[in-house]
Amino acid sequence: MASPTSEPTITQEIALCKFPQTLQMTMPSPTSEPTMTQEMFEPEKHGSTERIQWVLNTPKPPGLGCELMETAFPCGNNIPFLSKQSTRKYLISFMQATFPILSWGRNYTAIKFKNDLLAGLTLASLCIPQSIGYATLAKLDPEYGLYTSVVPPLIYAVMGTSREIAIGPVAVISLLLSSLIQGIEDPVANPVAYQKLVLTTTFFAGAFQAAFGIFRSGFLVDFLSHAALVGFTAGAAIVIGLQQLKSLLGITQFTNKTDVISVIKAVWRSFEHPWRPYNFIIGCSFLCFILITRFLGRRNRKLFWLPAIAPLLSVILATLIVFLTRADKHGVKIVKHIKGGLNPSSVHQLQFKGPHVGEAAKVGLIVAIVALTEAIAVGRSLASLKGYHLDGNKEMVAMGVMNIIGSFTSCYVATGSFSRTAVNFSAGCETAVSNMVMAVTVLISLEFLTRLLYYTPVAILASIILSALPGLIHINEAYNIWKIDKLDFFACIGAFLGVLFASVEIGLLVAVAISFAKIILISIRPGTEFLGRLPGTNIYGDVNQYPMAVKTSGVLILRLKSALLCFANANFVRQRIIKWVTEEEGDTENNQEKVKLVILDLSCLMDIDTSGIASLVELYKNLDSSGMKMVIANPRWQVIHKLKVANFVDKFGGGVSVFLSVGEAMDAFK
Amino acid sequence: MASPTSEPTITQEIALCKFPQTLQMTMPSPTSEPTMTQEMFEPEKHGSTERIQWVLNTPKPPGLGCELMETAFPCGNNIPFLSKQSTRKYLISFMQATFPILSWGRNYTAIKFKNDLLAGLTLASLCIPQSIGYATLAKLDPEYGLYTSVVPPLIYAVMGTSREIAIGPVAVISLLLSSLIQGIEDPVANPVAYQKLVLTTTFFAGAFQAAFGIFRSGFLVDFLSHAALVGFTAGAAIVIGLQQLKSLLGITQFTNKTDVISVIKAVWRSFEHPWRPYNFIIGCSFLCFILITRFLGRRNRKLFWLPAIAPLLSVILATLIVFLTRADKHGVKIVKHIKGGLNPSSVHQLQFKGPHVGEAAKVGLIVAIVALTEAIAVGRSLASLKGYHLDGNKEMVAMGVMNIIGSFTSCYVATGSFSRTAVNFSAGCETAVSNMVMAVTVLISLEFLTRLLYYTPVAILASIILSALPGLIHINEAYNIWKIDKLDFFACIGAFLGVLFASVEIGLLVAVAISFAKIILISIRPGTEFLGRLPGTNIYGDVNQYPMAVKTSGVLILRLKSALLCFANANFVRQRIIKWVTEEEGDTENNQEKVKLVILDLSCLMDIDTSGIASLVELYKNLDSSGMKMVIANPRWQVIHKLKVANFVDKFGGGVSVFLSVGEAMDAFK
Repeated sequence: MASPTSEPTITQEIALCKFPQTLQMTMPSPTSEPTMTQEMFEPEKHGSTERIQWVLNTPKPPGLGCELMETAFPCGNNIPFLSKQSTRKYLISFMQATFPILSWGRNYTAIKFKNDLLAGLTLASLCIPQSIGYATLAKLDPEYGLYTSVVPPLIYAVMGTSREIAIGPVAVISLLLSSLIQGIEDPVANPVAYQKLVLTTTFFAGAFQAAFGIFRSGFLVDFLSHAALVGFTAGAAIVIGLQQLKSLLGITQFTNKTDVISVIKAVWRSFEHPWRPYNFIIGCSFLCFILITRFLGRRNRKLFWLPAIAPLLSVILATLIVFLTRADKHGVKIVKHIKGGLNPSSVHQLQFKGPHVGEAAKVGLIVAIVALTEAIAVGRSLASLKGYHLDGNKEMVAMGVMNIIGSFTSCYVATGSFSRTAVNFSAGCETAVSNMVMAVTVLISLEFLTRLLYYTPVAILASIILSALPGLIHINEAYNIWKIDKLDFFACIGAFLGVLFASVEIGLLVAVAISFAKIILISIRPGTEFLGRLPGTNIYGDVNQYPMAVKTSGVLILRLKSALLCFANANFVRQRIIKWVTEEEGDTENNQEKVKLVILDLSCLMDIDTSGIASLVELYKNLDSSGMKMVIANPRWQVIHKLKVANFVDKFGGGVSVFLSVGEAMDAFK
Repeated sequence: MASPTSEPTITQEIALCKFPQTLQMTMPSPTSEPTMTQEMFEPEKHGSTERIQWVLNTPKPPGLGCELMETAFPCGNNIPFLSKQSTRKYLISFMQATFPILSWGRNYTAIKFKNDLLAGLTLASLCIPQSIGYATLAKLDPEYGLYTSVVPPLIYAVMGTSREIAIGPVAVISLLLSSLIQGIEDPVANPVAYQKLVLTTTFFAGAFQAAFGIFRSGFLVDFLSHAALVGFTAGAAIVIGLQQLKSLLGITQFTNKTDVISVIKAVWRSFEHPWRPYNFIIGCSFLCFILITRFLGRRNRKLFWLPAIAPLLSVILATLIVFLTRADKHGVKIVKHIKGGLNPSSVHQLQFKGPHVGEAAKVGLIVAIVALTEAIAVGRSLASLKGYHLDGNKEMVAMGVMNIIGSFTSCYVATGSFSRTAVNFSAGCETAVSNMVMAVTVLISLEFLTRLLYYTPVAILASIILSALPGLIHINEAYNIWKIDKLDFFACIGAFLGVLFASVEIGLLVAVAISFAKIILISIRPGTEFLGRLPGTNIYGDVNQYPMAVKTSGVLILRLKSALLCFANANFVRQRIIKWVTEEEGDTENNQEKVKLVILDLSCLMDIDTSGIASLVELYKNLDSSGMKMVIANPRWQVIHKLKVANFVDKFGGGVSVFLSVGEAMDAFK
């Protein structure tokens, strides 16, 4: 503990460095000149020999179980039921954590309510036509869309932490549900069985979401990367748009498949039959109307309400026109009867027995993850804009509970909608009360206004859905991804093309597969880089990254660029190092001296496996037989531990060839 | 380019560090005391401000294509046909590279030949009975095993680079072939079709192997990790052993499945029928004989030839006994007719049309990878023992060519055998000539001795196969893997149990899946570690790895432990850092000062994606709103480039908050 700090010790000199004093530059080593400050502190009085012992005698790193626990529960002791509090205090804090409304509700004021009321009414005017449209997209009766806009928003309002998110049925989830479930049960032939399956799936989706939140396994939601989501959503938007051609053109025979080619074929075939131009005329003219109002709303921020109520206005106008002209007699398809009244109970419709339970659970899992990803993405971006924190796990529990209770009350999967959340935000909502106002408004409409929707043309619903789609296609974002990360962009394009040309599931699968392949590719890339000393410092950097870095002749400093030296890259790394050393030899034969020392900087290596250790041993032997010495600098905790367990350090002759840093290794051989 | 090197500049002081001078310890910074050496070099005269510019103004890193090329072809310009040489010289070096025998053949001496002859004859005596046994394991006629011991070894001898490896049929590949192909074509009902399929598969396996070698994509072989191979081989050995119960017990009705449960059921069922004890007696007594000779051979190194010729002795003895006692009339199963003579051509048997070509190619790919992995593993370990280098790509080309030509001459897939290579090594082989001697000996036996094998009992073949199996079960190696890496051990056990209880393919699949899941898990583990300064140095290390490291009060230095900050871990890392900062706040409230600076050491981060950048921005905002400053130290090439492209540095206020190292960042805020 009190060896001289200045020069490498004699033992070292004998044991490992019989090299001539050839290094052309001497570096100012912080240890060679003990300053006043150093002498004032006892622990500062350490020599490089002892520092090597620090590297070799680290405490045992945490075991596998510990590591896995850490990976699964990064917030560990934050789990509420483990905190030490009195029962009453605990109950209060638990209630407040579960129902955030108990916290913010106490500070709720009349002014806030005024803003929320306005936002909620604007929201409802957009929500009613969208809900009916999305229900038809999900191949359910229109009233199910309205039901889904009542119960889930009310539950979210008391349990959720986001203030802006607008809850209800959304386009992507409606498409996902119908395209996944129609493979199990035909919605046209067996509408009742299909509906039961959708409700069961909703229950499973809610259960999975709540479970993710309770077990703090939000990382599952992260598995759908941002890039994949951008591609998937854009693909889904186009697929949804194509599905609307059925209503817009009034086609009777359409395909059940969602891919572009099948849909275009179906549309092509439909032209062989006589088609009904009135549907198309109504749909297109109101689509233009909605798009113009949106354009006006963008130009003048004060007119934000115009695009928000345009869909409702269109529905009212179109219904009136059809009612007055009796256009339904001339081929214009109308919604006809919408069942009114409160959400009926659907507990008896849930099926936990029978052949399709497993498939319903599988679809539920997929839908749960996509729904959460979408909701948390939109919630998080607005929370960060307003400067408050969104608790991902609480959000998941809230969404899970709202979908479970939703499945008991005839709702299908609800989540946060991109378009309506934006409207809610620009309408100036303050809290989740705007969701409550919206839900109550929809409830009132269900009770009293559904009869008025009898003559609503189906084409108008198609144009409302179509008008919401451009908000799902983020070209700028895709360009941004392309600029930053080409492989991420491949995941994005993979998801996009997968959804477009194969199916929704394949698109998701492609995106997840590419994202993970990228992780593997980057983690095991057999990269190695040359290091050189940065002038004026004792820091060693990549000579390509820092062209001003100075190489020391006779010494080759290499750093592994991968985080793992494992079966998949160990041989490669070894071969490449050997190749580089040989090349360097060739270079130096003419003008410089021979490479005598290879310093392997392991500072980026997080872990090593048996193949990795074997390749290090082989590398050592290869270099040794060419008369070169290999030393290791800055091994990390896990790595030095494993090297010790594998007796690797012993094979190196007493452990003297491991150093704390490249600088220390250079000093030792100076 | 000529700013003062001593103190942080005034601009910096104003721009970023209005913190009080609170750091309790001053460190000897290498830059603060310019030495003689530094002043001698112009480039050494740089201040920390300029060093920040070094970090920010790096050259553009190589693009995606370059990275991928580098990953796929790490030895890049080593491809022979790209080197600059005259045509004649090129031709000579190409021939020597393709046929290493042209190099070592010139130094071949009579003494070497004597050793090779002895080793080759020992090898042949072990090879003949093993080949017949393995052919029955592959569900082919016995002569196919002998054919496979003739052509492939001869070709390998002129093309291979290993000196010890013994080429021929091996147990694991025979099992793999039969278990994969019998799912496509029944070997009992359609022996001819089955045989054609095996030969076609052999051709595909050879073609894949040669292609791997030519395109230098040996990394595909690395995908089967060492741990997975240990588990897989052990599982396969037990399955092979169980398959031998059929011959050993003389059971007529056996199962086609390879899993333990099916085999035990089949054996159990067979006890209901009368069984033939003579088979069992012959098999067991000779198994004991072989094992005893092996024990003697181990005790006395000079008796190495005894275990090597014991199988042949057993065959001769057993055949004599059966012939003399006519035991085949009492239920002892015999080999009967073995077709003698040279390898017949089988070019016409290869099928490149028909329904099973795709499946044959798939099986060929799996078999090619497993065969190469086994051969290269055994070859590499002996090469490293004898201190020469084994060229993986050349080995693959040699194995590929030998299997392609093998498939034209009635051979099935050959590779390097564990057991016979060990015998070859201990018999003192010098070069691949021992393989030639063996091949010629087998050829002579095929021509003249097959008739003598008519009365060879099948049970003796079973006991020869059984006696080779312990060499495939490496319990020590498994224990070693357990000690070093628990997750690797799971891959090992997964492969073992998969082979044992499901099927050979599932075992392989499980092993590969676990191995890659491990890579993902380690790469994205949301680990972060606290850094402290190591006493007496300017090096910062993990406070858990180096308990003597000194934390600086008021400053939190964190290093990301993952190589990638991406969609899968970005949120986690952010949350955990926030949690830690908050905890540290709680700690410091009582006795120490508030955290004012968070230094994020990115030195281990190899890459970042859009989600990663978004989470860094959010982290910065979160810390900023709590009155903390976040700075970044030592970003790597790709990372700083992407941060720049995403305008991240600009968001930070002019790029001043990025530093070359933790030490520089600490100095700037001192």
